[in-house]
Amino acid sequence: MQIVVFTPNQIIQRRLSDTLGASLRIANDEAGVFKALPAADGLIMAVQDYSDQIGRAVLQAGRLKWVQLLSAGFDRVQKHGVPQGVIVTNAGDALTPSVATHAVSLALAVQRGFPAMAQAQARGEWARDMQPRMTTPAEATCLIVGFGSIGKEVARLMRAFGAHIVGVSRSGKTDPLASPLADEIITPAQLPDYLPRADTIVLAVPLDDSTRGLIGRQELSLCKKSAVIVNIARGGVIDTDALADALEAGTIGGAGLDVTDPEPLTPGHRLWKAPNLLISPHVAAACGPLLYKRIADVACANAGRFMRGEALQNVVIS
Amino acid sequence: MQIVVFTPNQIIQRRLSDTLGASLRIANDEAGVFKALPAADGLIMAVQDYSDQIGRAVLQAGRLKWVQLLSAGFDRVQKHGVPQGVIVTNAGDALTPSVATHAVSLALAVQRGFPAMAQAQARGEWARDMQPRMTTPAEATCLIVGFGSIGKEVARLMRAFGAHIVGVSRSGKTDPLASPLADEIITPAQLPDYLPRADTIVLAVPLDDSTRGLIGRQELSLCKKSAVIVNIARGGVIDTDALADALEAGTIGGAGLDVTDPEPLTPGHRLWKAPNLLISPHVAAACGPLLYKRIADVACANAGRFMRGEALQNVVIS
Repeated sequence: MQIVVFTPNQIIQRRLSDTLGASLRIANDEAGVFKALPAADGLIMAVQDYSDQIGRAVLQAGRLKWVQLLSAGFDRVQKHGVPQGVIVTNAGDALTPSVATHAVSLALAVQRGFPAMAQAQARGEWARDMQPRMTTPAEATCLIVGFGSIGKEVARLMRAFGAHIVGVSRSGKTDPLASPLADEIITPAQLPDYLPRADTIVLAVPLDDSTRGLIGRQELSLCKKSAVIVNIARGGVIDTDALADALEAGTIGGAGLDVTDPEPLTPGHRLWKAPNLLISPHVAAACGPLLYKRIADVACANAGRFMRGEALQNVVIS
Repeated sequence: MQIVVFTPNQIIQRRLSDTLGASLRIANDEAGVFKALPAADGLIMAVQDYSDQIGRAVLQAGRLKWVQLLSAGFDRVQKHGVPQGVIVTNAGDALTPSVATHAVSLALAVQRGFPAMAQAQARGEWARDMQPRMTTPAEATCLIVGFGSIGKEVARLMRAFGAHIVGVSRSGKTDPLASPLADEIITPAQLPDYLPRADTIVLAVPLDDSTRGLIGRQELSLCKKSAVIVNIARGGVIDTDALADALEAGTIGGAGLDVTDPEPLTPGHRLWKAPNLLISPHVAAACGPLLYKRIADVACANAGRFMRGEALQNVVIS
């Protein structure tokens, strides 16, 4: 049994080493991955390091049965596909608490006018003119697009601030017992009816053909002038130019983006200067050693199951 | 019966007019207050408009029995004092939800590195170097100095994010049943023992002789290098120069200030340029019409009680 581990993170490496023992193969770079893959039964790595080259190498890896990602997203793996019989698992709920906290932090920051206040602060100005536009989640509607573990945790937090929660779920299960954290559960087809009521819109869906450009020019035109949009999913879920137009025209209230399209956002891109916008550079999951501890817990648990021949958890492709 | 109402806010004026009827005397400016005060039984106004001149006029107002403030703070009234027999009431819990939400928004914004990210955004830079310093409230200690209604609401919200709550209460009541929102309740005298353990420190105490300069050079030197300090109380609770030194030296993690000393912060003040600091210009309570509705509810309830000769609520000086 050989499991290739490709991450520079010492906390995760050490924890996996304890679990995998002699089965551990550390790859320090892409070349190390290519060298180890033909004999590998499993591959553990971060999705952001899943390059086109690695994607192609995985398709040729004859023994491979399992890819464990150290993140929630798996779009780069999906893009290449994996050989028949290979199971892809993600970090499950390990990133959920910090990503959801980041999403709520972005929503609150924009609702409280922090982007404009930070600009006034840089100019040394005590500028109270944002005050009439400042809002809170209380007695307002929070629309959460994608009601998986991150969406549900966003719902729990926004509800603590007094928000009315509308969850958008592909399955559209409306049974309130199935999702006790939402006041209403709707399907993506109902978005045009609900966007005009939303005060906060949080995007927490995986990027795929059905979600690419989900929030486009038409959808933005349906939003309240005071609506705040938060994207902690993938940049491609929003039509960037349509969003920049809406922010510049003031037809929406503001946005908080942890992800962009293109990403990284190119120097000189018009979005950098858009008003009432806070950009965080794809760091929603960061929360110091606590994050790596949570990720290592999930990866180690699956590594143990894989070695014992048990069913894996957090399967995203099989 | 004559009640002087001094606020330009139409929502509050209209609601008070409905309650007070013929007893209402609208003052449109300070001159109007001076003219109406000698015959006034009550005065309803915002504490930020309570000038030295009004403070002196209140001391001369022979009929006055009641001052209703449209805010939580009452330091400017306390500074002048009121004649024997005059009861001062504040807005009670009306500002609590938005001020507590703002405090938590500031804490999250600084923990998530937004001040540095906003600066990188202004330069058009996708700068991920804040990542190792990013934290969340989870599995960390939140010290809340001042455990009144705002402090308790901050506790409830921070606990939703997974924080361990230490409330600092003057009474120091340690009965957990008395304050079910705190994991521990301590007295101000215990601060030196608890500051070294605190990841977030939220200041929510009234400004008086016992709290002026409460967080000074000595207290800041006890804080963790990663600690985030939030002040939604009054600027004077923190020693401004000591805070600026700590931020510049990186001996604390960051700060979010809705109040400053001096206030407004003067142009060119060194605090404007301090790192990992977010300044909001004393707007914590703002949340649009929802705030005025909540304030009007409290003022109208007391106006009704005053006219019926019943005991007033939210008494802060008597």
